[in-house]
Amino acid sequence: MPALRSWFSIPRGSHFSLANIPFGIISTPSSKTPRVAVAIGEHVLDLEAFAANNGFSALSIIQPHQAVFSQPSLNAFAALGRPIHAIVRKYIQDVFDADTTYPEILKTNSALQKQALLPLKEIQTYLPFKIGDYTDFFAGLNHAVKAGSMFRGPINALQPNYKHLPVAYHGRASSIVVSGTPIRRPNGQILLDPATEKKQPTYSACKKLDFELELGAFICKANKMGEPVPVNEAQDSLFGIVLMNDWSARDVQAWEYVPLGPFNAKNFGTTISAWVVLADALEPFKVKGIENDVGVLPYLKEKDNKSVYDIQLKVDLQTKSGNSKTIAKTNGRHLLWSYPQMIAHHSSTGCPLQVGDLLGSGTISGISQSEYGSLLEQSENGKIPIKISDSEERIFLEDGDEVTFSGVCGSDEEALVGFGECVGRIEPALKL
Amino acid sequence: MPALRSWFSIPRGSHFSLANIPFGIISTPSSKTPRVAVAIGEHVLDLEAFAANNGFSALSIIQPHQAVFSQPSLNAFAALGRPIHAIVRKYIQDVFDADTTYPEILKTNSALQKQALLPLKEIQTYLPFKIGDYTDFFAGLNHAVKAGSMFRGPINALQPNYKHLPVAYHGRASSIVVSGTPIRRPNGQILLDPATEKKQPTYSACKKLDFELELGAFICKANKMGEPVPVNEAQDSLFGIVLMNDWSARDVQAWEYVPLGPFNAKNFGTTISAWVVLADALEPFKVKGIENDVGVLPYLKEKDNKSVYDIQLKVDLQTKSGNSKTIAKTNGRHLLWSYPQMIAHHSSTGCPLQVGDLLGSGTISGISQSEYGSLLEQSENGKIPIKISDSEERIFLEDGDEVTFSGVCGSDEEALVGFGECVGRIEPALKL
Ligand SMILES: [Ca+2]
Ligand SMILES: [Ca+2]
Ligand SMILES: [Mg+2]
Ligand SMILES: [Mg+2]
Ligand code: NI
Repeated sequence: MPALRSWFSIPRGSHFSLANIPFGIISTPSSKTPRVAVAIGEHVLDLEAFAANNGFSALSIIQPHQAVFSQPSLNAFAALGRPIHAIVRKYIQDVFDADTTYPEILKTNSALQKQALLPLKEIQTYLPFKIGDYTDFFAGLNHAVKAGSMFRGPINALQPNYKHLPVAYHGRASSIVVSGTPIRRPNGQILLDPATEKKQPTYSACKKLDFELELGAFICKANKMGEPVPVNEAQDSLFGIVLMNDWSARDVQAWEYVPLGPFNAKNFGTTISAWVVLADALEPFKVKGIENDVGVLPYLKEKDNKSVYDIQLKVDLQTKSGNSKTIAKTNGRHLLWSYPQMIAHHSSTGCPLQVGDLLGSGTISGISQSEYGSLLEQSENGKIPIKISDSEERIFLEDGDEVTFSGVCGSDEEALVGFGECVGRIEPALKL
Repeated sequence: MPALRSWFSIPRGSHFSLANIPFGIISTPSSKTPRVAVAIGEHVLDLEAFAANNGFSALSIIQPHQAVFSQPSLNAFAALGRPIHAIVRKYIQDVFDADTTYPEILKTNSALQKQALLPLKEIQTYLPFKIGDYTDFFAGLNHAVKAGSMFRGPINALQPNYKHLPVAYHGRASSIVVSGTPIRRPNGQILLDPATEKKQPTYSACKKLDFELELGAFICKANKMGEPVPVNEAQDSLFGIVLMNDWSARDVQAWEYVPLGPFNAKNFGTTISAWVVLADALEPFKVKGIENDVGVLPYLKEKDNKSVYDIQLKVDLQTKSGNSKTIAKTNGRHLLWSYPQMIAHHSSTGCPLQVGDLLGSGTISGISQSEYGSLLEQSENGKIPIKISDSEERIFLEDGDEVTFSGVCGSDEEALVGFGECVGRIEPALKL
């Protein structure tokens, strides 16, 4: 399929080509109220301004709902449902098309262009959703095998349940922040010397601060309490995807997590990218995930086995002194479980999902060192330093380190479907 | 201290004496918009109607904030802070006092009495808060020892971290419901024969459905991300307490919970009582919790060691055929960790708590069979039937069973500070 060509300047290699049209929440210095926009090339289209100036005059179906674009979150837009998301995206693609059906809307309307097309570098972005509940899955098989091997040996790396159900835990919604928000190194309860018989913890700055490279999915359809979502209908619940950094305090985690799972090790911060790529935009990049070699139960069996996404993922680390390196490259296809399977399992007991809920995929790793999506794996829990430059190496994150995830689908430089970046810089811990 | 006497009829033995004044959300058949009320005896005082008719005319400090009483949740009222909660409670106590300073407000104002004093049995109650995040702790030492012993033997019953930190996991906020809401037995992934070498799960109706007797605390003060709440300031964050039933699917839990903790086993429903008893009302009932025989770290050390509550707790089970029995009696004092300690630990990594967050205490058990706060403990995981009547016994919950928690502080029948009831009835699972 040839790339859509636009009358508007979209640089080659942009994550936000006409094939994408990701949604987010923005404000500008001159108009500080957060509202809905889409990203296009190096600009955003402010949908509140667009709607207010008859931008949707040729799309009657959206007119009764235009107030959704003035909201400070995507929840109301998402709740309109996937058919509407598809129509709005397609309409915006048409408006920007070189041969647009509606030139008078924007192409020849320089007043509206000036008002609604804002340079990306001049806007502020916000958390795209008001997140009710956040769940983090553990669907990255390679990560589970690698991390499990390090602690229990390769034979017992995976728990017996791992291939039968998408393992997950409930996470902390209140500490999810948008890309660019600094992350303070947590203080926490840790065991300085885990090997000693007598376990005497201390409360001190985390010494094993890590990232986890994940995808996050936003829910756009609620199910009633007591009514599970069938796996083959779960696509309807899937609004779109962001990049997600599940910051992790490994020393806190090691001491606290048996028997009820990670808690403080994860609740100090989770970063997501600002632009939500619609599930529709990702359709062309669906691929088969990792083969599950146990027969999954019927409630997890998908008709469509191309149900994960071919997203090229990358982790860059820049130190305080300015050295930087791409420390991992991997791919969104390295998942044992798809989002429809996660949704079906999550709701299998009747748990009600709500519009704006966020589902993390779990850490995504390939199978070699340069494909691991966490420092825990890369450094073998602190044993193998990772070279950043001639003068610097890392086993875990240090103060001032900036971690940048990026992700992109496709190879046609004029039709990329990308996620932009998910960035966080580590600030020093509070002095005790 | 003699009981406060009221001009208004409050039956002896009422949970909602003048010493209490618990807050909740109500509606009536003639006025269906949910709003704030307090419970008094067998009535509620509708605070929206009370405020609209000059009920607060003698309390100038609340007048700019009266809109909080028209909200469908207590979040806005709670956010005013504990000093305001104390003033409002004291004012309402004065208004109802036999020797009230303000007889014209309500005592001699029969029109307002008629409008704002509504019989409890004619109102509908709602979830008292819009709950952002819900965390369930595990602070009931006796429960942890008993449950741990059953699975790992008495020597290894407690994990090494148990006495050093208040163990907790993030729970599911979207499935928290108010007392009286039916609970559908979940279907879930379970291992029918855990003993076999080859682990082949099935998806079927839960066969080990259980309750957990807990307290729940609501947060009334937010801390900023990155800024822990000091343990000796944590009382300021504590709005009040409810009874909580953390329904648990033990067979789902056993199969899923290693390594990331309980997930589907708990996310199908959690019931809380409708009336939130203010922390101020519970002050006279503060007692020392279970002695912690390890030296806790400074960030968990309280100046005031009377920091848990002497609440007489009771569990009643009524079967479909109408047989009923009090199957457990225990006390809120059986906690190793207090709410201030839980809040300090929860935020110790900088996790931001928000107004309306709910913190479960963990299952509260005494040390003998009739004091266990779950059927898991009472039946030794299904091995010992509990007699309900001559014709019925239980090891876990059956369809049609109704579980009622109640809790009350004090012994003066005219000055009880009670929680009312936390009730849920089990409906049959969805047919597969
Ligand atoms: Ca994770
Ligand atoms: Ca519990
Ligand atoms: Mg996190
Ligand atoms: Mg529950
Ligand atoms: Ni008294």
